[in-house]
Amino acid sequence: MEIVTATEQFDEPLYLESGRILDSFKLTYETYGELNEDKSNAIVVFHALTGSHHAAGRYENDSKSGWWNPLIGEDKILDTKKYFVICVNVLGSCFGSTGPMSNGDKEPLRLKFPVITISDMVASQMKLFKRLGIEKAHAIIGGSMGGMQALCCAVEYPAFTERVICLASTYATQAWAIAFNRLAMEGIVNDPRFENGHYGKDDFVNEGLFGFAVGRMAGHISFLSPHSMDSKFGRNYVETDGIYELFGRFQVERYMEYNGHNFAKRFDPLSYLYIIKAMNIFDATRNYDSLEHSLHHIKAKMTLIAFKEDKLFRPREMEEIKNTLVNVGRGNQVGYVCIDSDYGHDAFLIEYDKFDFYIEKALK
Amino acid sequence: MEIVTATEQFDEPLYLESGRILDSFKLTYETYGELNEDKSNAIVVFHALTGSHHAAGRYENDSKSGWWNPLIGEDKILDTKKYFVICVNVLGSCFGSTGPMSNGDKEPLRLKFPVITISDMVASQMKLFKRLGIEKAHAIIGGSMGGMQALCCAVEYPAFTERVICLASTYATQAWAIAFNRLAMEGIVNDPRFENGHYGKDDFVNEGLFGFAVGRMAGHISFLSPHSMDSKFGRNYVETDGIYELFGRFQVERYMEYNGHNFAKRFDPLSYLYIIKAMNIFDATRNYDSLEHSLHHIKAKMTLIAFKEDKLFRPREMEEIKNTLVNVGRGNQVGYVCIDSDYGHDAFLIEYDKFDFYIEKALK
Repeated sequence: MEIVTATEQFDEPLYLESGRILDSFKLTYETYGELNEDKSNAIVVFHALTGSHHAAGRYENDSKSGWWNPLIGEDKILDTKKYFVICVNVLGSCFGSTGPMSNGDKEPLRLKFPVITISDMVASQMKLFKRLGIEKAHAIIGGSMGGMQALCCAVEYPAFTERVICLASTYATQAWAIAFNRLAMEGIVNDPRFENGHYGKDDFVNEGLFGFAVGRMAGHISFLSPHSMDSKFGRNYVETDGIYELFGRFQVERYMEYNGHNFAKRFDPLSYLYIIKAMNIFDATRNYDSLEHSLHHIKAKMTLIAFKEDKLFRPREMEEIKNTLVNVGRGNQVGYVCIDSDYGHDAFLIEYDKFDFYIEKALK
Repeated sequence: MEIVTATEQFDEPLYLESGRILDSFKLTYETYGELNEDKSNAIVVFHALTGSHHAAGRYENDSKSGWWNPLIGEDKILDTKKYFVICVNVLGSCFGSTGPMSNGDKEPLRLKFPVITISDMVASQMKLFKRLGIEKAHAIIGGSMGGMQALCCAVEYPAFTERVICLASTYATQAWAIAFNRLAMEGIVNDPRFENGHYGKDDFVNEGLFGFAVGRMAGHISFLSPHSMDSKFGRNYVETDGIYELFGRFQVERYMEYNGHNFAKRFDPLSYLYIIKAMNIFDATRNYDSLEHSLHHIKAKMTLIAFKEDKLFRPREMEEIKNTLVNVGRGNQVGYVCIDSDYGHDAFLIEYDKFDFYIEKALK
């Protein structure tokens, strides 16, 4: 499977929900497979908070493949012999698209960068799809923040696709998720090396911002659940640490430490602030009287895949989307399934064999 | 009700579980009511992580009463007309008892202070009770870390009391709780003002250690649950903040911020490190072959009060204590109840009217 990575520059204003305007912007994206002649075989994959456009395949010299590699490729569920799969790095992120630390040739805007919403992310991507000639996608799909983009797209661009698949997501971020994001925000902002956003571009390459690492450790708690942590770590202690050493560690602590510090080296803290903000304020009902009124706009068939132990975006939130669609008379256009998994929120990036069947079915 | 606050100095070695020795130590404690002639009417109350010996009554000029005030006093459930209630500030804490920042007249040991265990906390208190002539207590009771002390005392000093009441606690701290404690630890240790434990005694009076405040915010998440956060905060936004301001806040964020920073001004960060360590390594089975073998030592009637939405010390953990006691033939000596509450772990400090009846019953 060939990986095509590209960046598209837009020298036209993007009017943001906040009232702010981006005079120009760029989007980096990746595609797998070939766009067919009538441009009807595109599947849009939306990435989550820390994801990027690199959803599948493996770059030369990289040890890891794209974040949804088991699902995207030849003869896989998103079959690149049949579909043209595209994934766009979201506005605000740090992997090539316009964000707080990337403003074309100009000085980065840092904390003066405007707040971005999920709706803004989708609006910018729609401009890209239009430029590529994709007026209508075969399907759109995403997990977590990717699911928010998919739902938002279904409401705001109802003619764009007939098939929408949301995994481990919500119609509006709830207090539990907001609280965890707050920890990350506090960690980043209070770290003196953050310098109120005026750090150097390469300051964190060798040693990530500690406060960011701690914030990310909080994230790793939120992706799991008390139950899934029991299964994964129990009370196992790190072999080389002493139980009576003040800083001796249980394995769950080493896991947090490892993931937190590694992540802080490869993700930009300002981008993280902007993206968690976009997630926090995501609310599909905001411009409408009610969730009914909002979801009423959807024309596509919705497939909702929740995970039992997901505490961040709980099955009940996904169920509310389903129930609302049923209430507005779209019961025949919605499928909901709750997958039994011990992995919590992370399940959509791990337990493919438990849910890929539902994606396959939805694509037909 | 008269509040008697006192400190007792012990010029004798305390042999700690870790193998370290405290040559001398002191304990600050508070009592309510009168010890009767045969010294048989004492009720020992064990405090939680951030509590102190000040469990009831109100000091002059204080706006708040002790942490369990609704339960302790004349004609209350722990009736001070009838009982002599005593609560001791635990070893390692910062409210008068020996801890990392308090070493009598000597220099504080700071990070050289030995790791303390729940068992050490109980052992030190037993010396105090002995000195006060209390060979046997009418009952012992505690929530959260206080429940750990109560359970530990029941196992290790089975003759000390016939009535043990544990609320919102566990037989061994599980990974979820350990993970949250890790956030606090990381926050404290990575804050430059912590100075590797060499901060000045009054450094944080006006402005708490920021990293500690963030760690405490994490704690405040763990005391709640996704469900209880929905009930308490929903997606309500702070009135004076803008939705499109990057640092605009939801009410749950303001709650965390307020509680985190306030707490960091009144609690010592080193004490916090030592006490969460004691909680993390608490495991009633550690010196035994199994939980059966451990709990087998208990002679008292056990009353276990769990709270449905408590994610930190879950009902299933309390249930395991009950089931184990049943398995070792003590079914007639154990009562277990799971209280339906929206408050999560905090319920044992809030929803008194839902559980005080069970305490009353247990004291008879």
